Amino acid sequence: VNRDELLALLRQTAAGDISAAAAVERLAHAPFESLGFATIDHHRTVRQGFPEVIYGAGKNPGHLVTIAERISERAGSFLATRVDESGRAALEARWPDARVNAIGRTVSLLGERRLLSRGALHIVTAGTSDLPVAEEAAESALAFGHEPSRLTDVGVAGIHRLLSATAELRRARVIIVIAGMDGALPSVVGGLVGCPVIAVPTSVGYGASFDGLAALLTMLNSCAAGVSVVNIDNGFGAAAAAARVLEHSGANP
Amino acid sequence: VNRDELLALLRQTAAGDISAAAAVERLAHAPFESLGFATIDHHRTVRQGFPEVIYGAGKNPGHLVTIAERISERAGSFLATRVDESGRAALEARWPDARVNAIGRTVSLLGERRLLSRGALHIVTAGTSDLPVAEEAAESALAFGHEPSRLTDVGVAGIHRLLSATAELRRARVIIVIAGMDGALPSVVGGLVGCPVIAVPTSVGYGASFDGLAALLTMLNSCAAGVSVVNIDNGFGAAAAAARVLEHSGANP
Amino acid sequence: VNRDELLALLRQTAAGDISAAAAVERLAHAPFESLGFATIDHHRTVRQGFPEVIYGAGKNPGHLVTIAERISERAGSFLATRVDESGRAALEARWPDARVNAIGRTVSLLGERRLLSRGALHIVTAGTSDLPVAEEAAESALAFGHEPSRLTDVGVAGIHRLLSATAELRRARVIIVIAGMDGALPSVVGGLVGCPVIAVPTSVGYGASFDGLAALLTMLNSCAAGVSVVNIDNGFGAAAAAARVLEHSGANP
Amino acid sequence: VNRDELLALLRQTAAGDISAAAAVERLAHAPFESLGFATIDHHRTVRQGFPEVIYGAGKNPGHLVTIAERISERAGSFLATRVDESGRAALEARWPDARVNAIGRTVSLLGERRLLSRGALHIVTAGTSDLPVAEEAAESALAFGHEPSRLTDVGVAGIHRLLSATAELRRARVIIVIAGMDGALPSVVGGLVGCPVIAVPTSVGYGASFDGLAALLTMLNSCAAGVSVVNIDNGFGAAAAAARVLEHSGANP
Amino acid sequence: VNRDELLALLRQTAAGDISAAAAVERLAHAPFESLGFATIDHHRTVRQGFPEVIYGAGKNPGHLVTIAERISERAGSFLATRVDESGRAALEARWPDARVNAIGRTVSLLGERRLLSRGALHIVTAGTSDLPVAEEAAESALAFGHEPSRLTDVGVAGIHRLLSATAELRRARVIIVIAGMDGALPSVVGGLVGCPVIAVPTSVGYGASFDGLAALLTMLNSCAAGVSVVNIDNGFGAAAAAARVLEHSGANP
Amino acid sequence: VNRDELLALLRQTAAGDISAAAAVERLAHAPFESLGFATIDHHRTVRQGFPEVIYGAGKNPGHLVTIAERISERAGSFLATRVDESGRAALEARWPDARVNAIGRTVSLLGERRLLSRGALHIVTAGTSDLPVAEEAAESALAFGHEPSRLTDVGVAGIHRLLSATAELRRARVIIVIAGMDGALPSVVGGLVGCPVIAVPTSVGYGASFDGLAALLTMLNSCAAGVSVVNIDNGFGAAAAAARVLEHSGANP
Amino acid sequence: VNRDELLALLRQTAAGDISAAAAVERLAHAPFESLGFATIDHHRTVRQGFPEVIYGAGKNPGHLVTIAERISERAGSFLATRVDESGRAALEARWPDARVNAIGRTVSLLGERRLLSRGALHIVTAGTSDLPVAEEAAESALAFGHEPSRLTDVGVAGIHRLLSATAELRRARVIIVIAGMDGALPSVVGGLVGCPVIAVPTSVGYGASFDGLAALLTMLNSCAAGVSVVNIDNGFGAAAAAARVLEHSGANP
Amino acid sequence: VNRDELLALLRQTAAGDISAAAAVERLAHAPFESLGFATIDHHRTVRQGFPEVIYGAGKNPGHLVTIAERISERAGSFLATRVDESGRAALEARWPDARVNAIGRTVSLLGERRLLSRGALHIVTAGTSDLPVAEEAAESALAFGHEPSRLTDVGVAGIHRLLSATAELRRARVIIVIAGMDGALPSVVGGLVGCPVIAVPTSVGYGASFDGLAALLTMLNSCAAGVSVVNIDNGFGAAAAAARVLEHSGANP
Repeated sequence: VNRDELLALLRQTAAGDISAAAAVERLAHAPFESLGFATIDHHRTVRQGFPEVIYGAGKNPGHLVTIAERISERAGSFLATRVDESGRAALEARWPDARVNAIGRTVSLLGERRLLSRGALHIVTAGTSDLPVAEEAAESALAFGHEPSRLTDVGVAGIHRLLSATAELRRARVIIVIAGMDGALPSVVGGLVGCPVIAVPTSVGYGASFDGLAALLTMLNSCAAGVSVVNIDNGFGAAAAAARVLEHSGANP
Repeated sequence: VNRDELLALLRQTAAGDISAAAAVERLAHAPFESLGFATIDHHRTVRQGFPEVIYGAGKNPGHLVTIAERISERAGSFLATRVDESGRAALEARWPDARVNAIGRTVSLLGERRLLSRGALHIVTAGTSDLPVAEEAAESALAFGHEPSRLTDVGVAGIHRLLSATAELRRARVIIVIAGMDGALPSVVGGLVGCPVIAVPTSVGYGASFDGLAALLTMLNSCAAGVSVVNIDNGFGAAAAAARVLEHSGANP
Repeated sequence: VNRDELLALLRQTAAGDISAAAAVERLAHAPFESLGFATIDHHRTVRQGFPEVIYGAGKNPGHLVTIAERISERAGSFLATRVDESGRAALEARWPDARVNAIGRTVSLLGERRLLSRGALHIVTAGTSDLPVAEEAAESALAFGHEPSRLTDVGVAGIHRLLSATAELRRARVIIVIAGMDGALPSVVGGLVGCPVIAVPTSVGYGASFDGLAALLTMLNSCAAGVSVVNIDNGFGAAAAAARVLEHSGANP
Repeated sequence: VNRDELLALLRQTAAGDISAAAAVERLAHAPFESLGFATIDHHRTVRQGFPEVIYGAGKNPGHLVTIAERISERAGSFLATRVDESGRAALEARWPDARVNAIGRTVSLLGERRLLSRGALHIVTAGTSDLPVAEEAAESALAFGHEPSRLTDVGVAGIHRLLSATAELRRARVIIVIAGMDGALPSVVGGLVGCPVIAVPTSVGYGASFDGLAALLTMLNSCAAGVSVVNIDNGFGAAAAAARVLEHSGANP
Repeated sequence: VNRDELLALLRQTAAGDISAAAAVERLAHAPFESLGFATIDHHRTVRQGFPEVIYGAGKNPGHLVTIAERISERAGSFLATRVDESGRAALEARWPDARVNAIGRTVSLLGERRLLSRGALHIVTAGTSDLPVAEEAAESALAFGHEPSRLTDVGVAGIHRLLSATAELRRARVIIVIAGMDGALPSVVGGLVGCPVIAVPTSVGYGASFDGLAALLTMLNSCAAGVSVVNIDNGFGAAAAAARVLEHSGANP
Repeated sequence: VNRDELLALLRQTAAGDISAAAAVERLAHAPFESLGFATIDHHRTVRQGFPEVIYGAGKNPGHLVTIAERISERAGSFLATRVDESGRAALEARWPDARVNAIGRTVSLLGERRLLSRGALHIVTAGTSDLPVAEEAAESALAFGHEPSRLTDVGVAGIHRLLSATAELRRARVIIVIAGMDGALPSVVGGLVGCPVIAVPTSVGYGASFDGLAALLTMLNSCAAGVSVVNIDNGFGAAAAAARVLEHSGANP
Repeated sequence: VNRDELLALLRQTAAGDISAAAAVERLAHAPFESLGFATIDHHRTVRQGFPEVIYGAGKNPGHLVTIAERISERAGSFLATRVDESGRAALEARWPDARVNAIGRTVSLLGERRLLSRGALHIVTAGTSDLPVAEEAAESALAFGHEPSRLTDVGVAGIHRLLSATAELRRARVIIVIAGMDGALPSVVGGLVGCPVIAVPTSVGYGASFDGLAALLTMLNSCAAGVSVVNIDNGFGAAAAAARVLEHSGANP
Repeated sequence: VNRDELLALLRQTAAGDISAAAAVERLAHAPFESLGFATIDHHRTVRQGFPEVIYGAGKNPGHLVTIAERISERAGSFLATRVDESGRAALEARWPDARVNAIGRTVSLLGERRLLSRGALHIVTAGTSDLPVAEEAAESALAFGHEPSRLTDVGVAGIHRLLSATAELRRARVIIVIAGMDGALPSVVGGLVGCPVIAVPTSVGYGASFDGLAALLTMLNSCAAGVSVVNIDNGFGAAAAAARVLEHSGANP
């Protein structure tokens, strides 16, 4: 509730257009819904353009379905990430048409949601083993309305694979770069293009990758200025950051 | 050198418009300059809209001046960060009109560079002690052509300070959020707005902040989807990431 | 055995009221019981108002039952935490009326224990995935005689969910705040209320949460003054800290 | 602004007792003051019983004095922690009667503030080298209105020093336990008493203390149930936590 | 594509020997092959003497077989490491003559590849538990054309076992030293011989080995000058480093 | 082979008592045996009073039995630690009379080995969950010829349990103190007794114990002077350290 | 006060030999002395054979002298470690005959203390840069009554330096091994001798030594069974551990 | 002393060509020299082709000069690294012709040492701030007889700077790659060439470089197979590793 809305509401109240009790009710009618085990933030669609996304880890199938029902009732769509097999089964049983990505561990109901962009977002991965994170990012982006382009397995150890795609990369409006092991790819991509680069470290690698810590630190220390980083294996977060760029960075949002 | 440029060059060569030797020369004439102790990437202005920025840490005053001279000769401007007092004195002696920010440890020559945006970028800090990082970010943004708005000392322990600025924050096209200690501010800001949020952890805090590690981890784990993070105390990096958003994320860059 | 008790005992001995051997016996009769594989501290009820709690992790079902028997014989009640399924089965077989919380992994026998407070303790969680820790805290609190109020899934990414409960939170005498990921919630709660806030980091989150380390550091660095912290996922410890506040911080204990 | 206050305000508005514009003004009149380089939270006295405390680290003397002036104007008192020598000199020059503690690095103006408790708070330290943290805690407690009792250099390597003070410790309503090196003291104290125990790790120790990390981990893992922990060397935070217990945990706050 | 090749190509183009379009095609015909889920770097054989090695972790059996097919088609051989049981079965089904090492988790097709050296490379292990890493290193070396000598279980706690092999070690041209726990063996070997020593830490050990971190740090800090280190448990990487020494460090490669 | 032995051998050779070839043979006849997959250090009995102990982790049953056979052939006894169930079965099948401790994961053949001490070594544990480590220590000690006394579950949260055993502890010649969680017990024991105290951290505890790191750091920072520490969960190592004290620290070993 | 002493005291009291008040006084007369800023444990000489040692770090000169006076009054000797220059000057001014070791940063007054052993304790260092730690250990040992033998700069990179001293090392009753960098020396020494080996990591080394962490982990993971470890750079602690072995591990202490 | 030498010596002794005492003397005449504060390993020249290098950190000027004198007496040359200003002055005073590199902190006396290679070793750095490490490497290489080629400031953020030097890099026999921040350069170089690549992380960078840890982990996880790594900032170690390759990896060393 921002200042302008408050002023309007107060004026209406002062004018007697609505009663004080109704005004309180409206203000108090919080834009969220309590399920006891969860408090759904329905207002998020207004603030950020997409409804609250369901983080599936640690939620049982029953809870998952209930939360998804409440969200889809209002928003006409939902996205659930980190869904394990039992959760996937429960969601598919309830929504046979839901979009399921087993590698990316996502389930989504896209609804009537219009396509906001195609090919503006590029998802680049260093190796084949980074695929699950790339799939989570791609599915999330799609749910937000952006159909991504893909470039796979172009790690820096064979730099010519990446360089041959330079012109293509320069056409992107935002790039998600996913890499495990040395995590060096975002630095090279960041040096080749001017658009926002969102780096995602993955937990792929030998012992001293320490489950992605090595790639994370590499990316935070990228010598290419202006590369920003999200959490390890967090394809969803990268897609959300990309959606912020594509939808909400215009001059008059 | 992308494929199209290469095709053009090859055609000219095949047509005899330029000799093979000249073509090689042109291709080989790398868009950088070697000073022995440094290799300046003059091509960066073309790729990313601003010339190579001088990272002052560990460079002696003589090197600093020489590098700044070569860059300003071509680009008409320069930005140097992490400049210590002796470096600052040397740069000021050479360019008396240079812009010096002692708190932010920057020296810049803005030249004829046009203003690209005003107020599109907001810089928000959690506490007064985060000021040096905010100054580095602000000076860097200005050098890139973006005049930032500022919101200072609005940490989450007194959440009403931030909430009263919600409407203002919602007018931003990109927000840099700077916080030390618990680093919680970007999560709240990220939940209030839809635009890109770039989080900068600072090394401010008591013992277990571990020189900014605590705030860094907080931000990487932000429960607000799509917050992305740069290195500890890296105000410059945040400004560069913001410039990528403001300048290079449009549909037809 | 404090100085006053010792003085009394010595006076009785000097007066011949009890023999030296009996005095030694009484002093030596340590207020604990040795089972070989365990040494039960029966005196704890006297010192801290509740009997020794059984930490179930790594104990086999037989040991669990024996320890619970010895404690309940003297105290009329017991609380066991971190009990796995086999332990739970064994305790239920022995005490069919025991209170079992599968999510919180606790088994308790509340006995005749009177209710010491209702609604004085609030348990607030940032997300649905923090539920197991909240359940452990709630069951432990109940065993100590305090019936908690609950507020669930009010993380800072949707700050209005929390703010709408401010008045309710200000009625609490002590608040346990449970959060994973960025662990930012206790800072905001700590800024809203004056009462003691006990923060519990959970191991919920993406890669760089490092099994709760991120949330732990956030909470230790809370910019809200006077927030104190217990171990990762330690709902029991938080309840014990809350019980210390509710029962033992009065002027004349 | 809670729901009740809002309801009252809206009723007054609806009744025409105050104009809509005035109501907005009142709501918008945020209980803080912006100094450009700082945003002072004057409302904190209402919420938590003491005004915002000035964290001196990284603030220049001029800023320190200005902030202290604004706070003392409203609250009649101030407390500044982590004040270096130049800051101390500036504050003393402005307030010759200010209370200065060089070891604890605090400067405070106690004003007319009444004494809320004496001897209810105990501050226990493991070694002489922990003194600076103990002094910060003691000065902060005093500023909050609580005069602490002290017990110094009673580390667990000579356990009889502590045990001889058991009766005294049992008279406390809340205990701050400060220890570096192995950080074992809070576990023993926590086992001896029932009241809240707030543990403060210090950065005192040989190499593998890692600047207090060792003691911090010890305390978080305390086998005495219900010990809670604040940041390394954070005497102020411990005092604030103790003040929360002493002032705000009563049944009818 | 290096400068000389480019010059030649341009000259041919200028001379009309090949058309500009064909030249572009040739330059654009990147020496890699895209499978959608993978981008195979066929050029690596030219650059480094052996084809791209397949990192089996996280790849499904179908992908493994496809990638191996494409590589063996061109190179006549392949090496796959970190292959789990299902991958092993799939590869064996497709190439019944493939060389399988269950302990080392490798599958390889050696093809017509000639033996480049025998006994020039020594593989030394500290304990029997380091065997899987040693096997991976040995199989990789063999695939690269080097048949290694072996010295097993000669850790420094019984230093005479190693010393009795000194003369033998001095005949090596490069030595891989594999050790877990304290990781001390490379320091001693490095002091005994003049040839390159490549140290491989393993994740073998008690708790504070932290999955090989202890041995890794030991080796990086080796007091024997010129010992270099590869990743934890990375037998393959050590063999690749050894192959670089044996094949590509000559005066005229 | 020390200088004196060498001198004697050379004198015999010079005198013609033994041939040069035989002398070489004797010197070359290393006191170890190579099994290909292992190199057994038979000389260790001479140097340290007990034969090489078999570290069972990562060894397959066949190897375990072979190594145990070779050691027992020469030494008449063996000790294997960290033996999993399959290894245990294989060793029991071969030596039906072997001593098996399932909790401590050890298998041993004590042979004719005489008892060197009884009750000189005390093993003290903080909690019941530390039992597996205590069992490994006890079995190892027994194999070395020392029958330990035991004191279980006497952690510092109930300090009277430990203090009541002070006189008993003071009779020990060396004490192994085993603790997880806060790891505080060795500091208190170290302050009560003058004899060597060997601290063993265990991986028992809540999240921020970080698998024993917390207890390890506590013990390394023990404020009781002269406490020394072995690896996490390393009961065997503690017993070996104790055996060094009991057998090899006398004036004329 | 142990059980036997208590029994005797009670019997005397019961017999009227001493009054109850006097008995209380004697029991209450704690064997320590409070200086306000310190609590000296005079009883330590009885328990452990040497008086409390003064840890100089963070103590001002005045406190140092006062504490040393109180200890030397009762014990006739003192040892202060980690004494900075100002402390050293103050102690020398008060005790001109005190023994000062600038490299080891110790000041000691040996008094009439008899020599307990000579040459039973060996101190071995890996490099010249480890000297300060070795000096602290040697001075501490001397203060405890043990004159150490020394072996310097015999790190494992030139293993023959150590091996040539094997016979000498085998004459020791306890060995302190001090090493930075790879910390490998204790593993080799531990394999050569049977007596107790106390390892001291030092903070000497290049970047990834992480101020001694690397050497610490190496030593904790020593593959030589029964090596125990003290804190980084803690020469004093090693000497105290050695003194426990030499003085208090006999059969009838 | 290897087996063959021993056999020869024994035969001579048996034949009476040399006396037993002389044989002992020769064997016992250890190839090192004890200075009390140091034990110089003169034999290292024989084993590894260059005399022991003096690690200057923590050594006083007098010791430095003495050690350098003893080494140069035998070897005719010396190399000292990590020499601070006072050490440098002392060495220059003693050897006015010594080669001093202030940036690399080395002092060396090259003597008559012949040049073993020129241009076979390449030293590549990512940024100007990495220069001190590059200088240490270059000076060390020169002292070992190898004159390096240099390529400076070619970090991956401007990848064309590096690629334009590909042909040059392919002429190297061994390459040292030095990089701070993201440490990504060795992965790209390692993919471009077949020769051995030795990676050196530097401590250059913003906060989360953690003094070089980030670059170290990147390099250990390099996706270019066969890159090996030395310690942070250890230019000397890299040169020593390169010298091992250039001098001791031939077929008949």
